[in-house]
Amino acid sequence: MAWHRKHLLDTESLTKDEILTILDTAKAFKAVGERAIKKVPALRGKTVINLFVEPSTRTRISFELAAQRLTADIINFSAEISSLKKGETLKDTTRNLEALNADIIIIRHSAAGAPHFLARFLNASVVNAGDGAHEHPTQALLDAFTIREKKGRIAGLNVTILGDILYSRVARSNIWALTKLGARVTLCGPPTLVPRVFEQMGCRVSHRVEEAIEDADIINLLRIQHERQRKTMFPSLGEYSSLFGLNQARLARTKPDVLIMHPGPINRGVEIDSDIADCERSVILQQVTNGLAVRMAVLFLVNGGKGPQEVG
Amino acid sequence: MAWHRKHLLDTESLTKDEILTILDTAKAFKAVGERAIKKVPALRGKTVINLFVEPSTRTRISFELAAQRLTADIINFSAEISSLKKGETLKDTTRNLEALNADIIIIRHSAAGAPHFLARFLNASVVNAGDGAHEHPTQALLDAFTIREKKGRIAGLNVTILGDILYSRVARSNIWALTKLGARVTLCGPPTLVPRVFEQMGCRVSHRVEEAIEDADIINLLRIQHERQRKTMFPSLGEYSSLFGLNQARLARTKPDVLIMHPGPINRGVEIDSDIADCERSVILQQVTNGLAVRMAVLFLVNGGKGPQEVG
Amino acid sequence: MAWHRKHLLDTESLTKDEILTILDTAKAFKAVGERAIKKVPALRGKTVINLFVEPSTRTRISFELAAQRLTADIINFSAEISSLKKGETLKDTTRNLEALNADIIIIRHSAAGAPHFLARFLNASVVNAGDGAHEHPTQALLDAFTIREKKGRIAGLNVTILGDILYSRVARSNIWALTKLGARVTLCGPPTLVPRVFEQMGCRVSHRVEEAIEDADIINLLRIQHERQRKTMFPSLGEYSSLFGLNQARLARTKPDVLIMHPGPINRGVEIDSDIADCERSVILQQVTNGLAVRMAVLFLVNGGKGPQEVG
Repeated sequence: MAWHRKHLLDTESLTKDEILTILDTAKAFKAVGERAIKKVPALRGKTVINLFVEPSTRTRISFELAAQRLTADIINFSAEISSLKKGETLKDTTRNLEALNADIIIIRHSAAGAPHFLARFLNASVVNAGDGAHEHPTQALLDAFTIREKKGRIAGLNVTILGDILYSRVARSNIWALTKLGARVTLCGPPTLVPRVFEQMGCRVSHRVEEAIEDADIINLLRIQHERQRKTMFPSLGEYSSLFGLNQARLARTKPDVLIMHPGPINRGVEIDSDIADCERSVILQQVTNGLAVRMAVLFLVNGGKGPQEVG
Repeated sequence: MAWHRKHLLDTESLTKDEILTILDTAKAFKAVGERAIKKVPALRGKTVINLFVEPSTRTRISFELAAQRLTADIINFSAEISSLKKGETLKDTTRNLEALNADIIIIRHSAAGAPHFLARFLNASVVNAGDGAHEHPTQALLDAFTIREKKGRIAGLNVTILGDILYSRVARSNIWALTKLGARVTLCGPPTLVPRVFEQMGCRVSHRVEEAIEDADIINLLRIQHERQRKTMFPSLGEYSSLFGLNQARLARTKPDVLIMHPGPINRGVEIDSDIADCERSVILQQVTNGLAVRMAVLFLVNGGKGPQEVG
Repeated sequence: MAWHRKHLLDTESLTKDEILTILDTAKAFKAVGERAIKKVPALRGKTVINLFVEPSTRTRISFELAAQRLTADIINFSAEISSLKKGETLKDTTRNLEALNADIIIIRHSAAGAPHFLARFLNASVVNAGDGAHEHPTQALLDAFTIREKKGRIAGLNVTILGDILYSRVARSNIWALTKLGARVTLCGPPTLVPRVFEQMGCRVSHRVEEAIEDADIINLLRIQHERQRKTMFPSLGEYSSLFGLNQARLARTKPDVLIMHPGPINRGVEIDSDIADCERSVILQQVTNGLAVRMAVLFLVNGGKGPQEVG
């Protein structure tokens, strides 16, 4: 189906068909990234703003490269050096950016709902690059892209997301996207980080890792953000690792063709053993490559692209 | 008349005809910003350096986008991470930038006169993006552009600049530009911030806001920089707001077609009531849009452009 | 000879012919920098990453401009805001960058050997922009380029490097490059900073500046990094300056056509008298200009260019 949305705010409000249009468009753009000249003129003369109120080198660079490969002009705007520090409201800051004829504003913000708030009054397209603990839709889309690419389908697969679910926008966006696409999602981690309330989103909740991964086709490991987590959530990194970390013993009891995924940056030795991160079941780096293609697709579509048939 | 200057250092030394050439050229570039492809190849293969020794996201981005839309290559250079911290002189830093075949160096500096100093020895063009409390010429030019666009003329209009005049480079550049163009300028604010000495620049000085705005065609509100101002200048933000802030009661006693301007970022509830900032008399966001066009014009002209007839 | 290396890691492993190929290619690119349109499409659609784990505005900008003039897309990645702070390993960070289809990763790192480490596992080309106290090959190449340009040759010339040799990657890279090209290299400075062990690299070591410079064709002054140096290395900047600084009295006793070089940023009044830095024997700014041409050549060659005959 032809894309018609102006913004990409979340995966919750996307239909299955819309998700598939993004994935198909991303597939066309992935081929561009493999050419000698990795550029298409799709967004030539368009202005994209990377508004990162919460810092993130990794996602910022992925969007920046995506815009460059679409031949857009891109401006990086980080909060540390901005008028936001002088007391300007987010609304005023973004209306100022729009007044510079910005076509697309990509926003990363620590407050859940910030992109939705902007979309209510901006004429520019808004792309959510992560809002608080709410959503990170392009991460979920690149995860879905990677699963489909490796497994040939998503419907009917068992996807286990392992780690800090409670505070994870990646988990939320994944749950919405994967369940729409027909996967069965299991969430696993300590009870403090994986409360039963997630069952209301259509997931299975498990607090025993062996049980959660034994039938998994995909294990998506979330980063334990030890720089953020409160001590009350779990006793120590060592204890987390011994109870929930993916190690060889646990991997040995999974399906032989299970895919290991992780949004990065990985903590080797915490949520994942170092050798597993580098093993052939791990598609962690392919996720990064696919992220670029997905973000090219998203920028292309919110700017008026209709679908993969338009990718040059 | 054909432009012939290599630098844009201030509005004080510009003639009326030179200002009009910039405004006419900006008008031609404003049309470019409204196209689907917002670029022209005017500065293709030219190198522009954004040398911001004093930080300013807003002005930096406006110049960066202006350069991008002229298809120039642009480098951002901020003082925090530069050799200036290692004790290199400003002269050496800028001669090094010039040795990189820079064509235009845009400088924001906390020291008044820094751009004029550079222009004495550099072969590259120098554009002043704000020097201490001295001048901020592109802001004054975009203000003049906006007035002319909205009112059809500048000569004969009453322009009231309200706020911290003493420390404001925006005020100084506006006074020079507007009086050359035939406007009558009134300055208003607390006596500590608006000393009588400004009468020598050809302005009326008033310390009563009602008097200052009653005949105004334009009210240009300056930001109260509460992060900088000394306590000795005025007792409190609340007192400033009650004595000089633009509110509905005061606005009701002005001309019905008065334009409300502000260089941004605005302090809602301090120098301007929030609803006035968003009302239809406010052209604050149009100023931002026009700033981009004015900066494109300035970069184009200092690089050898002659005037609007050359804009493609 | 045709270039065939994928990385530029150091000057130690380059052959004389390889160095000459770089210099010849740089000469062709220098001409590009003097054109009205300072760009060639040689790296169009290629992605270059400026990975500066140790900050350096000067070198970063030179590489950034070099990439822009080759029409590459370039991303700046500085460590302060990166995942490296979240505990990600350098290997993981760079493999992630490579997964974004990066063609060339330029790295500045405080650890000696970091670029060599990356070259072992990355498919992208690696360019060393300075690694600890080990090497800074593009600086040595631009120094060699400047000497050859000014003197017509390098073989048989006397080059004296004066200053902090012990901690200087510039010195090490210069020694390797210049001795391969047939110059005689003398190192001079306080015994604490210029130990006799450097004689094993084929250099003369002198601790008396008058002796070291009297026959010099080139004096290359290194920056005294007073922000880093320990007090134990020399008593004070004043004492360093009086014993080793290049002043008029010392310059008067050198060859009349001696070239004064310095990698910058210079400390006027410390390692060099202010008027000497600006005198006609000084080629300090030409070094900067040549650095851009050398870096264009290096990016061009590691990306598959064969030599100067291919420069458009």
